[in-house]
Parts: sequence; structure tokens; C-alpha cells
Amino acid sequence: MNQVIQERIVALKKVMEQAGVDYYMVPTADFHNSEYVDRYFKMREYLSGFTGSNGTLVVSQKEAGLWTDGRYFIQAENELSGTGIKLFRMLDEGVPTIQEYLQENMKEGQTLGFDGRVVDTALGCRLEKALQEKKIRFAFDKDLGDQVWSDRPALPCHPVTVLDEAICGKTAGEKLADVRSKMEEIGADAFLLSKLDDLMWLLNIRGADVACNPVALSYAYLTKSECYLFIQEGEVTDALRTHAAKYGITLLPYGQVVSFLKERKEKETVLFDGANTSYTLYRTLQEKGETIDRKNPTELMKAIKNEVELSHMEEVYLKDSAAVCKFIYWLKKNVGKMKITEATAAEYLDGLRSRIDGYLDLSFPTISGYKENAAMMHYEAVPETCKELQPEGMLLVDSGGQYMGGTTDVTRTIVLGPVSDEIREHFTAVAVGMLSLTHARFLYGCTGRNLDILARQPMWNRNIDYKCGTGHGVGYILNVHEGPQGIRWRYTEGQSEAVIEAGMDVTNEPGIYIEGSHGIRTENVMVARNGVKNGDGQFMYFDTLTWVPIDLDGIDTKYMQPQEIAWLNSYHADVYEKIAPLLTDEEREWLKEATRPVE
Amino acid sequence: MNQVIQERIVALKKVMEQAGVDYYMVPTADFHNSEYVDRYFKMREYLSGFTGSNGTLVVSQKEAGLWTDGRYFIQAENELSGTGIKLFRMLDEGVPTIQEYLQENMKEGQTLGFDGRVVDTALGCRLEKALQEKKIRFAFDKDLGDQVWSDRPALPCHPVTVLDEAICGKTAGEKLADVRSKMEEIGADAFLLSKLDDLMWLLNIRGADVACNPVALSYAYLTKSECYLFIQEGEVTDALRTHAAKYGITLLPYGQVVSFLKERKEKETVLFDGANTSYTLYRTLQEKGETIDRKNPTELMKAIKNEVELSHMEEVYLKDSAAVCKFIYWLKKNVGKMKITEATAAEYLDGLRSRIDGYLDLSFPTISGYKENAAMMHYEAVPETCKELQPEGMLLVDSGGQYMGGTTDVTRTIVLGPVSDEIREHFTAVAVGMLSLTHARFLYGCTGRNLDILARQPMWNRNIDYKCGTGHGVGYILNVHEGPQGIRWRYTEGQSEAVIEAGMDVTNEPGIYIEGSHGIRTENVMVARNGVKNGDGQFMYFDTLTWVPIDLDGIDTKYMQPQEIAWLNSYHADVYEKIAPLLTDEEREWLKEATRPVE
Repeated sequence: MNQVIQERIVALKKVMEQAGVDYYMVPTADFHNSEYVDRYFKMREYLSGFTGSNGTLVVSQKEAGLWTDGRYFIQAENELSGTGIKLFRMLDEGVPTIQEYLQENMKEGQTLGFDGRVVDTALGCRLEKALQEKKIRFAFDKDLGDQVWSDRPALPCHPVTVLDEAICGKTAGEKLADVRSKMEEIGADAFLLSKLDDLMWLLNIRGADVACNPVALSYAYLTKSECYLFIQEGEVTDALRTHAAKYGITLLPYGQVVSFLKERKEKETVLFDGANTSYTLYRTLQEKGETIDRKNPTELMKAIKNEVELSHMEEVYLKDSAAVCKFIYWLKKNVGKMKITEATAAEYLDGLRSRIDGYLDLSFPTISGYKENAAMMHYEAVPETCKELQPEGMLLVDSGGQYMGGTTDVTRTIVLGPVSDEIREHFTAVAVGMLSLTHARFLYGCTGRNLDILARQPMWNRNIDYKCGTGHGVGYILNVHEGPQGIRWRYTEGQSEAVIEAGMDVTNEPGIYIEGSHGIRTENVMVARNGVKNGDGQFMYFDTLTWVPIDLDGIDTKYMQPQEIAWLNSYHADVYEKIAPLLTDEEREWLKEATRPVE
Repeated sequence: MNQVIQERIVALKKVMEQAGVDYYMVPTADFHNSEYVDRYFKMREYLSGFTGSNGTLVVSQKEAGLWTDGRYFIQAENELSGTGIKLFRMLDEGVPTIQEYLQENMKEGQTLGFDGRVVDTALGCRLEKALQEKKIRFAFDKDLGDQVWSDRPALPCHPVTVLDEAICGKTAGEKLADVRSKMEEIGADAFLLSKLDDLMWLLNIRGADVACNPVALSYAYLTKSECYLFIQEGEVTDALRTHAAKYGITLLPYGQVVSFLKERKEKETVLFDGANTSYTLYRTLQEKGETIDRKNPTELMKAIKNEVELSHMEEVYLKDSAAVCKFIYWLKKNVGKMKITEATAAEYLDGLRSRIDGYLDLSFPTISGYKENAAMMHYEAVPETCKELQPEGMLLVDSGGQYMGGTTDVTRTIVLGPVSDEIREHFTAVAVGMLSLTHARFLYGCTGRNLDILARQPMWNRNIDYKCGTGHGVGYILNVHEGPQGIRWRYTEGQSEAVIEAGMDVTNEPGIYIEGSHGIRTENVMVARNGVKNGDGQFMYFDTLTWVPIDLDGIDTKYMQPQEIAWLNSYHADVYEKIAPLLTDEEREWLKEATRPVE
């Protein structure tokens, strides 16, 4: 393999020389800065052999370097070994950023090449500024890797689904009107929308171009009276044509967005979001006229679920929770009696989900980590090498589904047999954190930074932290990670925070991860609701959507206050009431025991 | 009185006409934008008759208007009645801001007059921008009111004290070196310091020009090698002269700061903080050359108390707490048996404080509010009209002292006799909030916005809010309100927050205020400390400085969790252990009972 990578780098250098490019940069992104990308976009992986989800390759005639973050240092070292590519450990002391590296190494007047379609506006602008003094030329129309990658897969292209308006709560026409009135407020004549999930939401359509993310590669260009949807021919169905005609949407080929913008005669102030609009589109807009770079107005509209969406979500979460309950029952019954591995356990759960009415896909690949594997937050069980489960220790399972009626995300850590006192203390602390945040009462105006400590305090009390946020927004038949809401604690000067609005859904997933020993996470999804409004303001609270028992075999009530025990018992009573009707007799009997009140 | 005010306004209009000023604005501030101001600076009160702490008067030949905020609407209406001055209720719907008012009413080319020494840079710049289009001229060197106020008191002028270096932990020389190295980092050649408490801290001196705030009217101008202190002749003592000579500080007259800056030949980039530097100084600096407008580097240095300061504070807080304990004992013993009013109770407490070693002053006028008066956060008991205490209900007392060794701030709500169940529930909720924040464990990087909910949750759980922050920094022998640290929850886009650093002190003062019924506040001062440091980061916690019992007559443990009861008992055990040695036998006996463990 290393030989292969060396050959690819040599081939790239040759192409660079022909193109007059001195340094060539290959980031990891699609044309929309999506969180997950299709195989077509894995150019950096093809050229470097490094398979991690985050990394940027920079190649010059002198050397090739790969930048990645702490999660991947060990993996990158292994995968790059023998390729001749140098590893740059991001944020390690003395390691230059890509920007610093280019500033130091590039000579005045040289050319930096990259595919501007896979570089977002913010990064492109930072590089512009950093390399200005050295008069570096930008060749951003160069997908040079394409000439090296001979058997590159085609762009993903799957037919689009038009959603039944009955499950959307709002028609595409109403949503377009909302966005247009926001454009007016902002002072924009036009709006270029590059973010795929926002676009799907806006037009009430769904795609299948990215695994687990029901989105279609596309762009929209919206004016006061027109709406253009740029999408591949192969994705257009009769239903989409009818839908488009109904709402005045003009369908144009996906690849024409740049030429469309270049040739457009109208003088328009164009709204776009630099965070997920490519540098190529940004430069195209800049050359045309006025622009407004700010968050897509669709983001907040999409994040606040309407009552129709919420009622479908409630139903879907019941069915999804029942599947997880069935899984836990099966697992507890069979562990030690038949061969179950991390991977086959996940497969079993995935199978249960796939038989639910309206099932479309998983919302992300199921994470199934046994014992110390659960301490790795990005653990992926590989069938050939993964652990076999024994009637001892714990299995952490983080999973979710895409359904015609909602997207789910749930984590339970399942006790398979004897566990240490320390583990029970940790398990209980995580449960207490989750329950405390669930029962938060707060005034309108709070952001996730106000609430995070409610979930995190039991861990901080033990001098333990989980190095991630406590919660993220969840899409509606869309991406499992969605903004702008989130429950996080870290302060970054100048970074804007999203106020929690009634109707926003958010995960609640504190955890404890002890390297080499164990990992615990308990995750429900909640919806923010308005409570009492009085002279002091609008009070708010959370409703829960997820109904799966928290394993009482992991709970030690000596680490709980009576209030917390009451919360746990009340949650379990609700789980039984809601889920029991969806189970077989044996499963129901087990659930009764699994949700028994504790003291 | 109204006749008198009318005459003053007429006189002002005459002076305005002579000076060619069309609109004249009188804000409420001293030359340093201090929180509290001396009588000399109460020009707005003199001209309008309105005595509230916040208000701005705007006068033209056509009309006179006064802007104030919601706290003062009723008071302003009464005080302005018959004066002919129109009340502008700030933030009420349809009420223009001063800026909007001037934009609407001033005619092109007219002149706006004000004393630029009492307008801060930020406000001055906002007005500049707003009135630019109308080409309004600014006459900011006009203290026109001075010609009307014939018996105006003199500028306050009291001798300065040089602190014993043994209680400062750092010499003025070391502090000057710290600030100079920060200036170098920022790229400033010079630093104009206008903020009085920062200046006192920097030079290890104290003044007496503002009641309760041991500051001296002064400015400092610091370069890499020079340090100029602008201060009134009458404030300069021999000790100050010696001190100044020792640390290379040149003493210049207070009134010469503007001419000094104007005449200075050196080309310097000057650091200043627009938030507390006057518009006059800002314009002077602007005309000279480059400036950097950012927070005074002294603010953060002053906020982080060093170990010498902290050890003196611990000692002072013990003595101050003992005085409050003695007061509570006296009050509980005598209420109903002798005539005690809100005002005489405060006097008694003030008297106890004044007999403590090293006592200098109160740190703010003692707040003493009985029953429904305690619900008014800015209540001031006036001897002639204040309530007499009865053996029922509660008295809220918020008080503090200035000592040679620290500044204190403590609130206790004292139960004088029977109270309702609702009041006991509220009292207990406030105590639980205070104790929960006291026991916060958090990672370095948290700001007050992360922690506020720990104190506020018991109130929010009951759909009640207190409309203020939970805590503020406290000076060291300085102002009782100090930044940048604070415990608050509200999010304001773009507003920077201060990370809590070890050594920062902060108050912890949740409350419940029910209009017309009762007010409860329980306040301790705490110091942030470093705890365990491990792979997850630097954990932190708070140490308590205040040791006064929380009235058990207000506590109902049915509203508490066992953990919270244990916190209360543990705090009370510490109170007894620390304070008992400072009391008489009878007082000690009472304290034993007042700090008994509850179940």
C-alpha cells in the first residue's frame, strides 16, 4: 500500500508541475461542507492512505504533509508509515498550522492550488489574508487529484423523495415565504443556499446522497419571485417536477450553479453563509456584486420543530425506544449463552430498527463498544477484530434511525454482568447528570452554556470531565447533528450562542470515559417547551422523547439524593407505561423488572 | 421647590444662549465614570430636582427632558412634578432614546453642548455617529451648569493614604513592572489610566473622595520609564511624596491632565479604556496620535487577589462576620422589647463595625428593609419615615465595611417572629441556591454564566426569578463592586465574559423579592481556588470568607435534599468554630443554638 501511495503522490506532483501549481492542498469536505461525505469526496484519503475523518494534505515538489487532530495521531502514524508523507500533529507544541506552514515555505509569487469547491469561504479567506504579503497566486479551480484518481467513483446520484405535506407541518410555499420575509428584513435581494439539510427542509424534499443523511447534492438560489434548484438530472423524479411546478421552483443542472451566477444579469445583494458555502461560490459572488455573509435564516427555522413534526417525532421515538428495549432484553438474555460480538450486537439492533414502519436508514453507524472500547468516543467495531461479549462488564450502544416521521439518537450502557463499585458510582453519576438536565427549569434567554453544568456537575464533583458537549440538536428526517442549539460549557470569546427556543430538540448525553477501563454514556432526546409565563419572564422546561430504561444493575442509590431517585423512578414508570404495549409478554415482564422503583 | 427648579432651568437657558449652545446635555457621572459620585458631580440633580442615581437631563430653549430607568419612574414623576421638565421613561414603548430625541429635534448645523469630562468615550462616540448626518457641532468643553449652580460644593479633596506594603503583597514598583510588560505585549508606548480603583490598586494608595469608596480623584499616565500621577495638591501628603520618589512617580496637578497630553511632544501609541475615560480625554488623545481602546490591563490584575491580600481578607471577614453575629443576637433579643426601626437597626450594626480594628468606612450605605420594604432592591431607609420592627416577619440587612485589610459585603435576612409557610419555602430555596453555588466544582475556563444556574435553579423551579446577577467581584480595601468577574446568566451577543481565575473573589447572593410582601437575600463572599489538576484539566472550587448563621427560623428542611442539609450543617459548624471565640458568653450561647445541626 505504501508503494501505491508513493506512486499517487508522484503522479500528483507531475500534474501539479504541468498545471504550474507549486503547492497543492487537499482538504476533506464535499461542496457543501457537510459533516459526512460520500466516497467521491474522499480524495485526501485516496492520495494519502489516511482514513480518518479529519485531515488535510499539502503537497509540494519538496514534501508532502498531512495535518490531523489528536483523535487520529496514532492511526495516522500507522497509515502514513512508509508513504513518505510527513504527519503534522495539529495543536501540538511547535507544530505549524497549514497557514503558518504555507507562509514559511512558499516563495513570493508562487501558486497555491486547490479545488475551491471543497474549501469553505472562511478557510479560503484566512489563506488569502495570510498569503497576501507574499503575493501568492490562488489557483482554486484545480481539482488536480481527479487526474490521478483513475477509478474515482461517480458523484452520488439518487432519486429525490418529495415529503408528504401532512408530515411537514408547513408547505414548501409557506417556508419559502418565511425565508423571503427574512431576506427582506436582512436587506437581501437573493439568497444562495448551499447547506444541504437546510435546503431539504426548505423544499420539503429528501435525498440519499450521503449515508445516514437523507440529503441530495444541490444548491438553491432564491429571489423575491424566483427559486432555482440546482440538482443532478438523475435525482429528478416526476414527483419532484410536479412539486417544483407547484411552488414555482425552476430545476437546473447541479453543475451549472457557478455559470448561472456568473451569467446572471440582475444586480442583486446576495445573502450566503460563508461557513458552508464554498470558496469558489464566494469568489463568484464577490465578482458579481454586493453580498451579505451571515447564518442561513433557514437554520433557526429548521431547528424549531413545529407541532406536526413534534407529534410525529413522539410516535417515532416510541417505536424506536421499543426496538432498543427489545435489544436490551435480547442481549441480557443471551449474553454468555451464544456468541455475540460488538458487531453482531449492533447488527441485531439495526435489524430490529429496519423492521419498524417508516424506517429509511440508520441516522449514523451504530456505535457498539464493550468494556474499555467504550472509552473511545469514536470507536467503530470492525467485525473481524471486535470484542466478543461476556456476561461481565458493560456494552455502550449509541444508535439511531431515520424514519418517515423523525430521526432518533439514543445511547444506553448495558450492564452484562458483575461490575466494580467504581463503575457503579460512575454509572450512577452519569444517570444523575442526565436526569438533572432533564429536569432543568429555566427562563427564556438561556443558551446551552447556562444549562450544561446541570448534567456535568456529578462528574466534575469527582474531578472527571467528558471531553465533548452534553447535547446537540437533532434533525427531523434529517441529519442527526443539527444546529444552532447545543448544550456545551466552553466559552470562546466572540462566539455566538443559540438561545433555546420552544420546539427545539436537543440530546442530553453526559458520560464518563476512563481510558483502558470503561466508558459510560446515557443519552435521551428532549424538546424545549414553554412553561409558566409571569412577570419574571417565560419559564421553560424539557419534555423527553426517549423511553428506554437506565440499567438498574449499574445504579447504586447511595450516590443519589432522594429527589434524583424520585426522578429515576418516575422516568421508569413512564417508560413502562409507554413501551409495555409495544412488547411481547416476555419482554414486558422483563421491562417491568427493569423499570421497578428503587430506594 | 418646583419654582426653584424652574428658575434654574431658565438660568441655564440664558447661559446656553450666551454660549451659542442649542441643546445641552447633563448626565450623571464624575470624570472617571465611577459607580458612585461626590456631591460636586450632582449637577443633574441640582438642575432638575430628580435625586435618583441614574438620569440624564437635556435642555433646549423649547423644552427640558429627563431620561431615567424603570427603577425610578414613580420617584421621578413625583420629583419632576411642577418643574416643567418632561419625563422620558427609558425602554418604554414609543419613548425615544436621547440619541433618537436629538436626531429628531436638532436642526442641521446646531450645537450640542455638554461637559465632555463627565461623558464617557463610548457615549460620546455614539452621539458623534448619530448626529454626523445633521452636521451637529459638539461643544464639549462647556460646563454651563457651573454658571448656574452658585453655591456648588468644591471638588472633594482629602489626603491620600499610602498603604503599608506588608498588606499589599506586591509593591507599586512590581505592579508598575507588570503593567509595563503588559503594555509591551499590547504594543502600547503609554497608558492613560482613568479608572480610580485601578489606579489606587496600581500605586498602593487609597483616597477618600467618594463615600464608601476609598479612592482619590486622579489620573495616571504611564510610559516605559515614566509615571505621572495627576492629583489635587490638597491630597498630597509627605508619605505620598516619599512613596512617589521611591517608585519614580511624578506628581502633577489634577487639573493639568488635558494640557499635559496636548503639550506632550513624544509620539506615542496610547492605551486607554473608553468605558471609563472621558470624551474630553478621548478627543485629546485622538488629536495627538495613535490610540488603543481596550480594557485596562490593571482590571484583571486587581481582580485576582494575591495570597497576602487573601490572608488579610480572611482575618477581616472573621471580625466583620462576628459583628454581624452580634447584631443578629442583639436584634433577636430586643425586637418587640425596645423601639427599633429599620434605620436604628442599621445604625447599631454600623456602630459595631466602626469599633473593629482597622475600620475605615462602610463599603456602602447599609440596606435595612423590613417586610415588604425588603422586596425593593434599592430600598434606602430614611430615619423619619422608615418602618419600626415588630416581633414578626423578616428584616433584610445588606451591609459591609472597609478595613485596612479588606472590604466586606454580607446579607442576611433575619426572622423576627412568625412567618408564613410560603416565606419559609422561599427562605429555604434561597439558602439552597447559595449553598449549591458555594459547593460548585468546575473546570478552569468557566465563567459566571456557567455557574449562575446552580444558585438560581431553586427559584426557577418555583417559577420565580431575581432580576439581578448572582454575584460580583469585591475590591481589596476598594470598591465593593469590582469586575471583570461576575456570576450572571443573561447572554448578550458579543459581550465578553471573564473566566474565573484562582484568587478572584465573588459574592454569592441569590434572593427572592415578592412585591408588597417580602424580600429575602442570603449573601456570602467566596474565593475561587485551584483544586485537583489532572488529564481532564484544572478543577476549581470556592472557599468561603463569610461566617454568619443562616437563620434556622426561616429554614424548612422539607424543601431540602439530604446533601443540602449536610451543607448547611457543615457551614454552621464552621461558623460556630470560627466566630465563637470572638463573642461574649451570652452571644456564644445564642450562636450555639443558631448553628445547631438540623435534620
